[in-house]
Amino acid sequence: MVSRSQLKYIQSLGQKKYRDEEGVFVAEGPKLVKELIESHVELTQVYALNEWIEDNKDLLRSVNVTAINETELERTSQLKTPNKVIAIVKKFEVNEPGIKERISLVLDAIRDPGNLGTIIRIADWFGVSQIICSTDCADMYNSKVVQATMGSIARVNVFYTDLPVWLEQRSGVRIYAAMLEGKDVTKMSTIKEGLIIIGNESMGINKEVLQYSNEKISIPRKGSAESLNAAVATGIILSHLV
Amino acid sequence: MVSRSQLKYIQSLGQKKYRDEEGVFVAEGPKLVKELIESHVELTQVYALNEWIEDNKDLLRSVNVTAINETELERTSQLKTPNKVIAIVKKFEVNEPGIKERISLVLDAIRDPGNLGTIIRIADWFGVSQIICSTDCADMYNSKVVQATMGSIARVNVFYTDLPVWLEQRSGVRIYAAMLEGKDVTKMSTIKEGLIIIGNESMGINKEVLQYSNEKISIPRKGSAESLNAAVATGIILSHLV
Repeated sequence: MVSRSQLKYIQSLGQKKYRDEEGVFVAEGPKLVKELIESHVELTQVYALNEWIEDNKDLLRSVNVTAINETELERTSQLKTPNKVIAIVKKFEVNEPGIKERISLVLDAIRDPGNLGTIIRIADWFGVSQIICSTDCADMYNSKVVQATMGSIARVNVFYTDLPVWLEQRSGVRIYAAMLEGKDVTKMSTIKEGLIIIGNESMGINKEVLQYSNEKISIPRKGSAESLNAAVATGIILSHLV
Repeated sequence: MVSRSQLKYIQSLGQKKYRDEEGVFVAEGPKLVKELIESHVELTQVYALNEWIEDNKDLLRSVNVTAINETELERTSQLKTPNKVIAIVKKFEVNEPGIKERISLVLDAIRDPGNLGTIIRIADWFGVSQIICSTDCADMYNSKVVQATMGSIARVNVFYTDLPVWLEQRSGVRIYAAMLEGKDVTKMSTIKEGLIIIGNESMGINKEVLQYSNEKISIPRKGSAESLNAAVATGIILSHLV
């Protein structure tokens, strides 16, 4: 049985303030929770429907599980369609990113949680294990981000920082900026090292950030759309450079 | 002034049934509506806040406009944050797609409206002016699709059909299928003609559709994510083949 205070606690984690205070976040649904358990991420508590607990006994051997009923699940879930299981997960340790001999993404003001989550998933697909975010990006532990990463959140190191200050201290590494006008990325060779900056979809890359780039790159437009979604642009750029 | 029956009429267009009956759909927000007016699409009626009407007199010369107040806008808008203007737009004429000497996208069961809208926008970016959708794709006139296209909906011919039947009648054209395993798309040359099939994100391409493909193509995975979002995959494939 779940107590009323436990339900309230889960609900409170919908807000960044409480996630920060408690050092945990919420992940939902069988697929994502299974992937997190298998990634050896630290889960402090799992709440699930009895049927799901029955079906996943082996998986749950080293995890605290509490049964929850449909009504309780609906009341606490942040999904439109609640999906059997809610996990409370410890936030990850973040390592100060090393930038040598690897490709890292730098995100400037990606505020849409779905976009940020999709970008984390794309980075994971291309083996880019490190993302540096400006402090005005969406919170990576926002439930929409977590769900959109489809488990990749446990495999990518996401680091929030004051971007201009951080970039100023990175010397000797190539910094690419994704722009509407620049070197045609589809004709570039792959790279082994560098930072790739992706900017806010409607406003592009902030001037204070852009000044640190050495090379502007772009995806050639052959038709009429004004822009590409930031996550789509990230996918295209990585597919050509990685 | 807007009558109560007009408000009800706009709301009813949130449902496919009424959009089909009336042959119209809803588009919202200054940017999108402006782009539709400039695309010479037929708008049957525009409802907007007085301030917006004042600011856009020139644009609105040949359009029926009715003033609406904030409360009415909020009641009828399908956006989370209503945005000044709602247009009722006539559905487009759809042309039976010709497939020679051009690249067309074929979408199998893309059910997520945001994904479909983003794919229409990507197609427009790459100059792919034609999309053939299975009948179980999301409705292109769903307000989430319309908004996600960012105006590209007026420039891309979207055609719904029974895909296996339609594909069976297309002979002599190369048909590519986007799969998790296949020829590395990043190493292929660009193409001038062909159909590119994109499947449902979790289930892939339906067997009945897949049997018509001549070539399986894929985006090489370098990391650990299980899959890519369907719109992101479409963007990457088009950036290599177009």
